[in-house]
Amino acid sequence: MTQSEEAALVAWSAMAAPADEAAGALVASIGAAEALEWVRWGARSLPAAAASLYGRCTREVAEAAVLAHERWERRLDVADEPHSRRATAIGARVVTRGAPGWPSALSSLGAAEPFALYVRGSADLDAAWSQGVAIVGARSSTAYGSHMAAELASGIAAAGRAVLSGGAYGIDAAAHRSALAAEAPTVAVMAGGVDRLYPAGNDALLQAVMNVGAIVSEVPPGFAPHRSRFLTRNRLIAAASATIVVEAALRSGALSTARHAAGLLRPIGAVPGPATSPSSAGCHALIRDGIAILVTRVDDVLELVDSSTEWAERNVGEVERLGERGREGVARPSFDSPADRAVYDVTSSRAITVERVAERAGLAWIDATTAAGRLEMQGLIERSKGGWKRAR
Amino acid sequence: MTQSEEAALVAWSAMAAPADEAAGALVASIGAAEALEWVRWGARSLPAAAASLYGRCTREVAEAAVLAHERWERRLDVADEPHSRRATAIGARVVTRGAPGWPSALSSLGAAEPFALYVRGSADLDAAWSQGVAIVGARSSTAYGSHMAAELASGIAAAGRAVLSGGAYGIDAAAHRSALAAEAPTVAVMAGGVDRLYPAGNDALLQAVMNVGAIVSEVPPGFAPHRSRFLTRNRLIAAASATIVVEAALRSGALSTARHAAGLLRPIGAVPGPATSPSSAGCHALIRDGIAILVTRVDDVLELVDSSTEWAERNVGEVERLGERGREGVARPSFDSPADRAVYDVTSSRAITVERVAERAGLAWIDATTAAGRLEMQGLIERSKGGWKRAR
Repeated sequence: MTQSEEAALVAWSAMAAPADEAAGALVASIGAAEALEWVRWGARSLPAAAASLYGRCTREVAEAAVLAHERWERRLDVADEPHSRRATAIGARVVTRGAPGWPSALSSLGAAEPFALYVRGSADLDAAWSQGVAIVGARSSTAYGSHMAAELASGIAAAGRAVLSGGAYGIDAAAHRSALAAEAPTVAVMAGGVDRLYPAGNDALLQAVMNVGAIVSEVPPGFAPHRSRFLTRNRLIAAASATIVVEAALRSGALSTARHAAGLLRPIGAVPGPATSPSSAGCHALIRDGIAILVTRVDDVLELVDSSTEWAERNVGEVERLGERGREGVARPSFDSPADRAVYDVTSSRAITVERVAERAGLAWIDATTAAGRLEMQGLIERSKGGWKRAR
Repeated sequence: MTQSEEAALVAWSAMAAPADEAAGALVASIGAAEALEWVRWGARSLPAAAASLYGRCTREVAEAAVLAHERWERRLDVADEPHSRRATAIGARVVTRGAPGWPSALSSLGAAEPFALYVRGSADLDAAWSQGVAIVGARSSTAYGSHMAAELASGIAAAGRAVLSGGAYGIDAAAHRSALAAEAPTVAVMAGGVDRLYPAGNDALLQAVMNVGAIVSEVPPGFAPHRSRFLTRNRLIAAASATIVVEAALRSGALSTARHAAGLLRPIGAVPGPATSPSSAGCHALIRDGIAILVTRVDDVLELVDSSTEWAERNVGEVERLGERGREGVARPSFDSPADRAVYDVTSSRAITVERVAERAGLAWIDATTAAGRLEMQGLIERSKGGWKRAR
């Protein structure tokens, strides 16, 4: 890989929102450096740049790139900032897509594969992703949930596998902490830049993770952990060799990780709990709907990891049904485009202006407006106070 | 049905051990009265009686009857006792197979369908079995398990369905009690005669069940609740429209009921609990192995009942695998014959003479010996102190 290609991947990691599939497809087609040049050209003359693209990639990729151009152009200045230097300054290394040390397991993300990872800590990321197990769950875990997360993480560590999680309170913290106690590498995948140890209350824990394992992010240092970045971050965790959900309420973010893992045909385990515990309702729904296998001990987890090929075959049917069926809370609207998903993710029960929607979702104003219109037709969001909010 | 046919069914209910499929097949082929006459004839001259059978039923049925004759003949005197009169004397009614009020759902038991039911209480048994739900589980339940049993039973009762169980301590008692509290019919299926309110500690509860629902047994009054009768009794409970397992350790008898229900292609639900609770380990194994659906609330149970046809189709494959796979504790040896199973069931870790084995299993001495030989070859039981005990 040329130095300019590496530099361009870094620029793309800052310019495109995580999981921007139009960007991923363009870079895969013509290379990061040429794609970046194309964005600059388009900023001077989009019609000429657009015309130049046909023939160099498929019609779909070209069309998506032209539509996405406005949102990339708006962030060209951000792309040009010295992200690698900043990373080095805080003791982080930058691993670009395909470079030595790049986790090959991330290629299952297809066009949503990150352009670069910013890493603090010396863990072998390729091994962590290809053999490691993600443990995810509620921030507001019960003592039982934390116990189970620690128990499973300890067994996974003893089996020589890395424990991946999101560095959050509750289940995430219990899993990281237990792996650290076993002196085993653990990887915390952050939604914001690796300069921000988020949440602040986990500062000491994340420092320790850094010393033994690694803290990883696909966005450059300085980037804030926006809500939409948490949801796209979850796909990185879900790319581990298996995902275990330990305690999740019906609307827990951990279920988004499980859905991503299902989409990647990775084996998913869920830990049962009392039927009376709302903290286990999401796990029960995953098991009941056939998305996750019930796991109660580390042997179950290791069996799951070993079954990953078989699982992928078995679960193709399940995954196809994921969009349609599923119980309230597990079912998530299926979106016509990444823009629709991004807009939906930044809306809440409080109204927000379309400008703010565009900004938070990392979309051009016109894309945000169009997406909002589609979501309104589907009854997912509604107009309120000159802006948008989630439909009741 | 003629009076003598009814009387003969009563005699068979006393003479043959529950689930004696050779008896069931013979009675189904030539009628209870003729089959009884045939046993008497065989007692005088087995070769002549045996010869007479060929042509009146299939070769298999005839051969099984000839092999079984000795064990039936030994119990002809028991068959001749006045069971109906004794039942009436204690306020019980006798419903013979196929008579008005007979639960048609029991016909799915095939050759193991009981010959008669002894009933105390006025519940509509046909409705109870065809629409009712069995709730079974550990005798040594936790407070959580009892709560869940009560919660589900109460919802089943509110849906106008009977709650069936086994009248034991723990989960059974919680289920019956909750149905009673809802003033809904509940049915306790006993392993011994209905004159014995077993266990004695549930005397008051079983009296109440009798007043609102019914206490039912397939063996005549006076018969003791032997261990093998508990296991055969479980198939009657499993013939309900669905079976829900609430808390069961890995070796719980409730798993035998679940296995019977699986064999009858009835929907099975299991309530999850903490992964750390041995009382929920059997439920988790049933869910994990795909034998049961995870249920946490009464809506899940009612959905399961409504799905019974679909379930039966879906589960044919699962049931075929039941013999081979399954985890330790859920997996049960597969037996070559009902005699093998009966012998295995009456053995334990303490040695027992072959005479006692034959008596408890309701088998002829030669059949018990032969079965024990087969079980020894399979490594399931072993010789000890001139008798047999379970292999370690």
